[in-house]
Amino acid sequence: MATNPTEKPRHRIVVVGAGFAGVQLIHKLQHPDVSITLVDRRNHHLFQPLLYQVATTVLATSEIAWPIRHLFRDRPEVETLLGEVIGVDRDKRTVQLDDGPSLPYDTLVLATGSRHAYFGKDQWEPYAPGLKTLEDATTIRRRMLLAFERAEMEPDPTIRDALLTFAIVGAGPTGVELAGTIAELARHTLPPEFRRIDTRKARILLIEAGPRVLPAFSEPLSAYAQAALERVGVEVRLGHPVTDCGPNSIRIGDTDIACRMIIWAAGVQASPAAEWLGAEADRAGRVAVRPDLTLEGDENIFVIGDTARVQQPNGDPVPGLAPAAKQQGAYVARVIRHRLEGRPPVAPFHYRHQGNLATIGRRAAIIEYGNFRMKGGLAWWIWGLAHIYFLIGTRSRFAVAWSWLWIYLSGLQSARLITQREQHRR
Amino acid sequence: MATNPTEKPRHRIVVVGAGFAGVQLIHKLQHPDVSITLVDRRNHHLFQPLLYQVATTVLATSEIAWPIRHLFRDRPEVETLLGEVIGVDRDKRTVQLDDGPSLPYDTLVLATGSRHAYFGKDQWEPYAPGLKTLEDATTIRRRMLLAFERAEMEPDPTIRDALLTFAIVGAGPTGVELAGTIAELARHTLPPEFRRIDTRKARILLIEAGPRVLPAFSEPLSAYAQAALERVGVEVRLGHPVTDCGPNSIRIGDTDIACRMIIWAAGVQASPAAEWLGAEADRAGRVAVRPDLTLEGDENIFVIGDTARVQQPNGDPVPGLAPAAKQQGAYVARVIRHRLEGRPPVAPFHYRHQGNLATIGRRAAIIEYGNFRMKGGLAWWIWGLAHIYFLIGTRSRFAVAWSWLWIYLSGLQSARLITQREQHRR
Repeated sequence: MATNPTEKPRHRIVVVGAGFAGVQLIHKLQHPDVSITLVDRRNHHLFQPLLYQVATTVLATSEIAWPIRHLFRDRPEVETLLGEVIGVDRDKRTVQLDDGPSLPYDTLVLATGSRHAYFGKDQWEPYAPGLKTLEDATTIRRRMLLAFERAEMEPDPTIRDALLTFAIVGAGPTGVELAGTIAELARHTLPPEFRRIDTRKARILLIEAGPRVLPAFSEPLSAYAQAALERVGVEVRLGHPVTDCGPNSIRIGDTDIACRMIIWAAGVQASPAAEWLGAEADRAGRVAVRPDLTLEGDENIFVIGDTARVQQPNGDPVPGLAPAAKQQGAYVARVIRHRLEGRPPVAPFHYRHQGNLATIGRRAAIIEYGNFRMKGGLAWWIWGLAHIYFLIGTRSRFAVAWSWLWIYLSGLQSARLITQREQHRR
Repeated sequence: MATNPTEKPRHRIVVVGAGFAGVQLIHKLQHPDVSITLVDRRNHHLFQPLLYQVATTVLATSEIAWPIRHLFRDRPEVETLLGEVIGVDRDKRTVQLDDGPSLPYDTLVLATGSRHAYFGKDQWEPYAPGLKTLEDATTIRRRMLLAFERAEMEPDPTIRDALLTFAIVGAGPTGVELAGTIAELARHTLPPEFRRIDTRKARILLIEAGPRVLPAFSEPLSAYAQAALERVGVEVRLGHPVTDCGPNSIRIGDTDIACRMIIWAAGVQASPAAEWLGAEADRAGRVAVRPDLTLEGDENIFVIGDTARVQQPNGDPVPGLAPAAKQQGAYVARVIRHRLEGRPPVAPFHYRHQGNLATIGRRAAIIEYGNFRMKGGLAWWIWGLAHIYFLIGTRSRFAVAWSWLWIYLSGLQSARLITQREQHRR
């Protein structure tokens, strides 16, 4: 019980959320005077940037997820709790869990991330699952594979075509990567395995309300990305918002398209941290924080990662990217260390943009860093190496590298498992 | 549509079940005059002998499961359907699916396997999940990991102890392998990751009504296995049947033991093939077949694998092992080939026993083949190599070998993911 924060005079830090921000903060905050309690509603830290590859049968779940406890097994002052936060009592300085103890804190860090959002159309969710958790990924994987299975059995050509129409909403990195991988699955991996349908005839629609794909990139690169998508067979629909999602169709502007599978890669909404704090939130649900990432009026509470709205000098908010979350985690670790050691406060948080990367399928990628731009096969290799580098631990690096190498050489996605609820059951 | 069996004059073979028996039959039956339809309620073939390693966080699901279509991608005359069989019309010679077409056959092969059984106490199932499918494995994995998580949060020592008590019912290979692996997880992998509980204090009970563990082995080897289990900390309880299973306890004989996690590795029950056929079934639900594995009175229907009761010359039934299922599949392929070619009928099926293997945890195994007996570390390596050899495809062999090597060297199980239903949800 040595590190039970309720029993030691150490500075008690409660971190909610074991995403990139929370994990980075704890990695950087090694200090003899602190005890840290990390709370997450899941038992694993997830490498979100590759989640789309689980959804599209490229990787196995365990290749991009690690037990949170495992990350801090060598840090006796860090305890991990699997629990759901339901509120924060700022006067008593405690965090309430739905079950289990309420956790007292001296410093509270909220890094609870974001969830996909439907712009107020939550009724679309059952028909258009988003992609934020491992369950989301296996749900999408299951529905996608079942669509091909059902099409193979379907006598009615109209229904068959609907089953073979896949609509991806939102042409940010996730949408682009999903569309490209599904197209390759349908064109390269599946054709020899079906007898009645031609999976190459599957329609993969990438729908974007804005004027171009990957708006975070410069125009030439997003033009290249669109061309690369169209080359692998993705139908790119720009400039019209999705106006309705249903079990059998999707509506773009005023056109209905028969479609049995929709994937939502559009908006995100921050987690309910703002409600817990009774704090102001912007339209995306993010809590506005001060330049040192503390909550307005309460310097013992930090909000970081996708949950926070951090202003940049130019007025733009810091983007919701993994590197940004990690930088905020590392920054808060420094702020806390300075406070513990009575050193002068550190300079305001400054976001260093590390560039944008995106892949289109199995061979092409685009990279942009300031004025440096790169596209094509070499960019794909750099993308791959960078992601392997950022994975945690030798085991995962080898496993992912092996899976990719295998697919690169054989063209065969192998994690094509239909599991859990909707399947046929024994 | 070339190989759609409803459209060609070829000999139409319908195979129900893509386990070892059904898959082996199709592998061995390559003949220009046949068209084969393979029906399974799942989209994947499962390497059952290693399923317990998914349940105990050693392997990832995709390492021991392969898309069925993928196995026969190069066999245009084989079509795969994902569907649930609900009946067989022996007069019309059709197989009924719950949804989708009814399938006409000239020859029908039922290889639908078995499910764990509760000796008529089906009300135990919710508290004592069995281990036959990937979902079973992830359910057990989730519940086991959640038990540790909840124990870490539990203030009441009595409940904590119950959460840390794991009961495995049945000391056959599956029960022994589960108990050994869970014990090692609790003793070697988890201790440094928990702060409030000592996972080494977890109780792992292996409960067997019979007089010894692994009864299929000779006495000396089962004595060795029991000693090895006790060395890794498993409590072996012999000679008393389980008389009740509940959410908070298990009853052995007339003793109640507080326990929040039970795993059922005792009886099996054959799938409902007998009902479909209106045929005689033994107590285990198996269909009695003739020496050529056809159904009594209907030579166009074969029943093989765990679904069939095949008499050996000595009167014993052929055991429900993977090699036995494969041999039956290969045998039926030969019978059908002989029929198609008008050659004389083949000799009755003869089961060649290929010996028994079992592992106890991460270092020890036992092997028995006739009078040849082997135990300990070397046996473990042989066991491992044998299983890697029997896996399908280079990718899986590498992946499993890597996972094992990693665990062998580091002692860290890494597929420790709590996913799906019972977890905390967003």
